[in-house]
Amino acid sequence: MSTLFKNADILVRKEGKIGFLRSAYLGVDGAYIDYVSEKAPAKEYNAVKDMSGKLLIPGLVNAHTHTPMTLLRGVGSGLPLQRWLFEAIFPVEDKMTARDVVIGARFAILEMLACGTTCYQDMYWDYGELAPMVLESGIKVNAGAVLQMNDPSAQWAKDFFERRFAATERFFKEYNNAGDGRIHANMQIHSEYLTVDESLERCAEMMQRYGMEVHTHISETRSEHEECIGRHNETPIAHFERFGLLDTGAVCAHCVWVSDEDLDIMARKGATMVHNPSSNLKLGSGIAPVSKAIAKGVNVALGTDGTASNNNLNMFEEMHIASILQNGANNDPLALSAQEAFDMATINGYKALHRDDCGELAEGKKADIVALDMDKPHLLPDADTLALLVYSAQGSDVCMTMVDGKVLYENGEYKTIDAEKCKTEYLAAAKALLG
Amino acid sequence: MSTLFKNADILVRKEGKIGFLRSAYLGVDGAYIDYVSEKAPAKEYNAVKDMSGKLLIPGLVNAHTHTPMTLLRGVGSGLPLQRWLFEAIFPVEDKMTARDVVIGARFAILEMLACGTTCYQDMYWDYGELAPMVLESGIKVNAGAVLQMNDPSAQWAKDFFERRFAATERFFKEYNNAGDGRIHANMQIHSEYLTVDESLERCAEMMQRYGMEVHTHISETRSEHEECIGRHNETPIAHFERFGLLDTGAVCAHCVWVSDEDLDIMARKGATMVHNPSSNLKLGSGIAPVSKAIAKGVNVALGTDGTASNNNLNMFEEMHIASILQNGANNDPLALSAQEAFDMATINGYKALHRDDCGELAEGKKADIVALDMDKPHLLPDADTLALLVYSAQGSDVCMTMVDGKVLYENGEYKTIDAEKCKTEYLAAAKALLG
Repeated sequence: MSTLFKNADILVRKEGKIGFLRSAYLGVDGAYIDYVSEKAPAKEYNAVKDMSGKLLIPGLVNAHTHTPMTLLRGVGSGLPLQRWLFEAIFPVEDKMTARDVVIGARFAILEMLACGTTCYQDMYWDYGELAPMVLESGIKVNAGAVLQMNDPSAQWAKDFFERRFAATERFFKEYNNAGDGRIHANMQIHSEYLTVDESLERCAEMMQRYGMEVHTHISETRSEHEECIGRHNETPIAHFERFGLLDTGAVCAHCVWVSDEDLDIMARKGATMVHNPSSNLKLGSGIAPVSKAIAKGVNVALGTDGTASNNNLNMFEEMHIASILQNGANNDPLALSAQEAFDMATINGYKALHRDDCGELAEGKKADIVALDMDKPHLLPDADTLALLVYSAQGSDVCMTMVDGKVLYENGEYKTIDAEKCKTEYLAAAKALLG
Repeated sequence: MSTLFKNADILVRKEGKIGFLRSAYLGVDGAYIDYVSEKAPAKEYNAVKDMSGKLLIPGLVNAHTHTPMTLLRGVGSGLPLQRWLFEAIFPVEDKMTARDVVIGARFAILEMLACGTTCYQDMYWDYGELAPMVLESGIKVNAGAVLQMNDPSAQWAKDFFERRFAATERFFKEYNNAGDGRIHANMQIHSEYLTVDESLERCAEMMQRYGMEVHTHISETRSEHEECIGRHNETPIAHFERFGLLDTGAVCAHCVWVSDEDLDIMARKGATMVHNPSSNLKLGSGIAPVSKAIAKGVNVALGTDGTASNNNLNMFEEMHIASILQNGANNDPLALSAQEAFDMATINGYKALHRDDCGELAEGKKADIVALDMDKPHLLPDADTLALLVYSAQGSDVCMTMVDGKVLYENGEYKTIDAEKCKTEYLAAAKALLG
């Protein structure tokens, strides 16, 4: 199956710098882009789609989220952090079944596709239950079983770690590269504060053996960062580095309280900072040093975190907030450029998730493409298309989301998920959990 | 003409606290709400509208903007502040005609209505040219001629001030309370830094004579705040207070750098802080002390500022950013509650604009009503409706905007503005101005 988009405005890169082709052509053959030009192609395509008034951009990457938590959207709002977790979130999570987790994650995919997310990194449970549903949906995910060690003196915690450790290996063997690479299995270590040295050693060994990469929470809150220094006389980043856990291009969510030295380590190791501005602001965690990280050469990607602390999965919103937040926090209108913010939401995210064949609308790249309807009052005039994308556009401007050459969402319709059935199951699950 | 909305969820207040009626009735007769209840009314209405799956909320108030600047959306993005103003914005503004100003403002109204804004405060030019168009659109505005004194040693600047001073009085006499009160004329003093003491004295005299209120920019940037102290040995707020300009409930936009004493003065005088989070962040101005202002009893409203520094007029976005920004900046997840953020966008805005007959869905209040379509992936489940409104909802969820009992926007259709003609004129004007 091949498709030619014509009369489209297309976001392209020339030596890294973003520019736009006008009234141009983009050809898709199978899962790949095979043509991008302002001139018509010689090749004939099976289908031709007129994209007048539409802008094609690379799909957005949500580099850190917990999709099944859609079921917990808004739960415990207004409580202080510890009470929110222990009184509102954990008691509901304790009741969640594997079926709930799949139902919540599937509903999250509806939301993500509708606002242009083509790829995400998830952290929840043993991901084996989720993988078949994700494959069916057609979206891309990096995931694995979540490793944590709540209490090294308790047998249940040790058993839990062992089960998840085995699940990590099993998931990798069964699902890594499944769906022509749409699933990328990795090693999910919850955080420094929910591990012990012995478990980190074993993780590092398995990571090396399979060539996995680590996804973890790092220095989200000041207390977490400082308590690690108290325990180990080193920061969470330095602690993970000591075990070799950053050696394969780790993805470190949050990094609100990382030190300058931490950023140097991350740059040297090729580790990614995933900035989650909405969640970090909402929970009062603080503002991550994004501009400084970029200046030091750290790859910075963008995430929504879970809906319980956001409360949505809208990457346009994250891109917009990220783009202006650094300026405000640094009292510098040039602290983060529009391109830097857009790159965080797209190409840097794909890089973080070790997907170098995505993130650009260029020949030979995977066809992960989002179309925006630019004929809206808030998107006119078009004096600066990149500024429109970053500062004015909304997730609701997305009119088509394509992954690996397959349209998954178009004008309110989902092509791979029965949205009505999915909603009915979701609302029933939410009712059973929340009452 | 009377209309009954049935099967609606309705945001109401009980002793100030926000709650929700479910599957309820709201009756509108003429410009006023005359019925709100979960029980059906005895009265018969001319029309009955089924609002199943919809949530009715009070219209949003954009308490500080410059609507004709839609024509400048995205212009000069990426330039530092002074170069942005002097090299990008001012040269285009110098070319703008009265017709451009009307065309830009009318297009802004399309954008505002589509995302639920029912009332705004505008600052641009001599507002006389704009008033007939605004009246025709049906939206509410507080406005006046913008008073500024660029250079007290230059005759052109003195003449300019005199023209605008006369225009302020003329606009007040001609348009105050026009359209059954939809236009509210006030005194627009650009800022402390674009005035001299003599002009402030004259403004204060006219303000007292007509019972006008002042709308002004206050302490937006650190340098502006500190230069005022250097000139007058007092802050902009203290300076305005000395001339009596805060005596009638002034509306002070930005207030990023106000001191604790300034906030005390504002609370005592009943002056309003208009928080413009997107603009303040984007321009690197900083983060206003909103939580502190509320704690001190200052009325805090919300604005978008102009699209040149935002870059849209989406009050849902401002409400969302405001709600999480204070938490992040103060490292406190409870720094600003969902209700405080919602109040800033609605009832506090109406209060700031001296419109006590608006801002609540209650009998006897003006029917400024927005309906949201809640049947969207990002708005389910409904565990906490207020949290959904503040943290999850998008401007694009608005499906109806009513002002004074008249539907102005519904499901993409405008009832009082020829949107296609308006767009054609707008794009032509933008092209002539921007090339």
